[in-house]
Amino acid sequence: MTTQPAQANAARTTPTASPTTSLLTDMYELTMLQGALHSGTAERRSVFELFGRTLPASRRFGVVAGTGRLLDAIKRFTFTAQQIDFLHAQKVVDDDTLDFLRDFRFTGTIRGYAEGECYFSGSPLLTVEGTFAQACILETLALSIYNYDCAVASAASRMTIAAHGRPCADFGARRAHERAAVSAARAAVVGGFTATSNLEAGLRYGIPTVGTSAHSFTLLHDTEEEAFAAQVAALGPGTTILVDTYDIAQGIERAVRAARAVGGELGAVRLDSGDLVAEAFKARAQLDALGATSTRITVTNDLDEYAIAALGAAPVDSYGVGTKLVTGSGRPTAALVYKLVERADDDGVMQEVAKFSQGGKATVGGRKWAGRVVDASGRAAEELIVSARESTEALAALGAAGARPLQVDLVVDGVIQEEHRGPEGLAAAAERHRVSRAELPYEAWRLSEGEPAVPTRHLDLDGRQVLRG
Amino acid sequence: MTTQPAQANAARTTPTASPTTSLLTDMYELTMLQGALHSGTAERRSVFELFGRTLPASRRFGVVAGTGRLLDAIKRFTFTAQQIDFLHAQKVVDDDTLDFLRDFRFTGTIRGYAEGECYFSGSPLLTVEGTFAQACILETLALSIYNYDCAVASAASRMTIAAHGRPCADFGARRAHERAAVSAARAAVVGGFTATSNLEAGLRYGIPTVGTSAHSFTLLHDTEEEAFAAQVAALGPGTTILVDTYDIAQGIERAVRAARAVGGELGAVRLDSGDLVAEAFKARAQLDALGATSTRITVTNDLDEYAIAALGAAPVDSYGVGTKLVTGSGRPTAALVYKLVERADDDGVMQEVAKFSQGGKATVGGRKWAGRVVDASGRAAEELIVSARESTEALAALGAAGARPLQVDLVVDGVIQEEHRGPEGLAAAAERHRVSRAELPYEAWRLSEGEPAVPTRHLDLDGRQVLRG
Repeated sequence: MTTQPAQANAARTTPTASPTTSLLTDMYELTMLQGALHSGTAERRSVFELFGRTLPASRRFGVVAGTGRLLDAIKRFTFTAQQIDFLHAQKVVDDDTLDFLRDFRFTGTIRGYAEGECYFSGSPLLTVEGTFAQACILETLALSIYNYDCAVASAASRMTIAAHGRPCADFGARRAHERAAVSAARAAVVGGFTATSNLEAGLRYGIPTVGTSAHSFTLLHDTEEEAFAAQVAALGPGTTILVDTYDIAQGIERAVRAARAVGGELGAVRLDSGDLVAEAFKARAQLDALGATSTRITVTNDLDEYAIAALGAAPVDSYGVGTKLVTGSGRPTAALVYKLVERADDDGVMQEVAKFSQGGKATVGGRKWAGRVVDASGRAAEELIVSARESTEALAALGAAGARPLQVDLVVDGVIQEEHRGPEGLAAAAERHRVSRAELPYEAWRLSEGEPAVPTRHLDLDGRQVLRG
Repeated sequence: MTTQPAQANAARTTPTASPTTSLLTDMYELTMLQGALHSGTAERRSVFELFGRTLPASRRFGVVAGTGRLLDAIKRFTFTAQQIDFLHAQKVVDDDTLDFLRDFRFTGTIRGYAEGECYFSGSPLLTVEGTFAQACILETLALSIYNYDCAVASAASRMTIAAHGRPCADFGARRAHERAAVSAARAAVVGGFTATSNLEAGLRYGIPTVGTSAHSFTLLHDTEEEAFAAQVAALGPGTTILVDTYDIAQGIERAVRAARAVGGELGAVRLDSGDLVAEAFKARAQLDALGATSTRITVTNDLDEYAIAALGAAPVDSYGVGTKLVTGSGRPTAALVYKLVERADDDGVMQEVAKFSQGGKATVGGRKWAGRVVDASGRAAEELIVSARESTEALAALGAAGARPLQVDLVVDGVIQEEHRGPEGLAAAAERHRVSRAELPYEAWRLSEGEPAVPTRHLDLDGRQVLRG
């Protein structure tokens, strides 16, 4: 088996990341495009849906995230001359296809769940409509963004449930790919986190950044006292001091003293090792005995939703979460797929299509419309999915069932709906998630594995239940 | 708990990803820098090491990956005016610190395991030497790159072990963050993969790209026959046809016929659902009966190293691996850390330092040198790690123990050693891994969880064993 990956003509100077997003794409999307251009089907009107057949194993609910990032990415989905040259040189596709790509802009329409909304099995998170050529080539990019961001936001939401209102901050940059980490910080905010250690996420998404010092800062100085004095001199007494490099009790005493030496009360101590429940109780007692009753305690050692829940009774003021946040707490991908569900025939009439193989992975053809049914007590009771071609009849069916429609316009004929992007879009998503989650039945708050908190029901327009593959 | 992340002044136009890598950094690195500038310790000569306390749970060996990417990232580790403005506006650090950052270039020295080398518990993968200011602020970036790339390369290596020489291709783009996926394609090559579906990875790293069609292409056409005819017309008879949209046996017959209609024999069929072992045997028998003995079979449905192993006796020609590759097959991060192990005192004398807390996470102070001891049969028997300040005495100690030194120069006084970058660096890494893995004892090839295949022994210069925390 050969392991020689380099092209013969590859130069030592590595190209930097493409400024556009168009090659963040599986090759088969472009070869399918070429095939469709050949067979005259590339212009057939098509509808793709992005959804999960089920929630990631045993999760109670999913959290829609990545919507604003996808809209950003679609804005930059164009092919540069360098990219066209690459596709030509590597003979990925033929000249006709390159001509099509050279001028490509997405001009289709995307509807979907708004970012932050909760979702369940089969929820149609995105419905992408356009020519086959247009809708086909967004597949990989849309899936990459949604599969990662939804996984992180869903994990984040479980953690903020477990934290019961105590602030959670993302400290996971070092445990994820360096660019994924930036997106994770953003997805965490959708799931209820309030801050990140990641500076690029601060710059790019306006997320508040936090962080003060590591063990190395203490070890850099000749004594712990000198290190703490240096930190409060530089950052003020309100800083958070890491107290577990040597002896924790001694560290706490020195930290409080260092802050008072510059005329203030210490902002917080951080505990990053050991039995955090016991250490938090000990630290609180010591701080109170020292009169530092306003000094907070933050903890940061390998936390996940279960560890956070276990700290619920401990006198902890905030959590910093790393690995388990940015890797989706055991579910590193949301397992979403992107499937063609309708396309026009030669007469321009839309036809439902679906994979139907003995091998499994069957899909339900036809465009779907989703609504959430809320019961008399105000709790979400059902995810209702109606197969229908037209929005008017679908919305009527959802209305008849008392369901709140869940899909909104994200892109209309190529025009991106700006309210879903940028810092305002992110803030709205976080608020939307807070409201959507509050509406879920109490089962949704359980951290244990189990069934989705809200069952999904598929109806056709006559109100008959549709069986799903 | 507030979920309002947006800064008051944040504009709707989201900044695109920074062109430099300097803010892919935890905020505390810059606040520590500020503290060290205040206390006069920022210029203290310091040595940081990047290592794993243990291998990711129960793995037999790790694979070094990300080295070339880190060197690329260090080249672009500078602060733009926009970034400086952001740090200023958000009051992340003070003006003195901003002055330092404005002109920052890494001028330190990095030695480490060459990319592709196998590693074990405690192996010092990178040793970063410079002023504290210089070496401190690479922490997050180095960890992000190594934690992700090593996780993927290690998973890839397990898969290519299980594949026993059959080619493995990365099809995971859709199941990872869109930029992480590009790096995953590269790390997979280090672990023995030969191709990727990811076009950006093809452009950026010179990795051969593959891909032909999805179920949507078949569904786009009115009949499977039309779809297959369109594909061979566009891509030639040597293409790979996906045959499981409807009935697999019918699909295979139609695919062979479509290729012959344009005067060739079909290149391959792809199976993407169902019981792949059974389907592969059935497909092979059918292809042979049709006389299509040269037509290959590739399989792609949720593969991991165990599924690949289970297909070992089936007539499969190649594997396409998605989710489990790009998420590290259950170990999405390599759990590597970056720790200060030595720094100068006021007299410029280097002093060993280490966290030593009752809370755990203790580290071994002092710079470390690593070598691999190979037994008489040519198999790796021991990872030997020597604590020593000077390379000459360390190399002598390794030599006395019969160990092959494992660390090489990666950056020397800020000068990046170019042979570790670019497509040639990647090709060398893949070949290095092939050789390094072949040297491991047979235990390394076991997919079951267990102890590292090679034990790690720490020695001081007198040959005494050092206890690790």
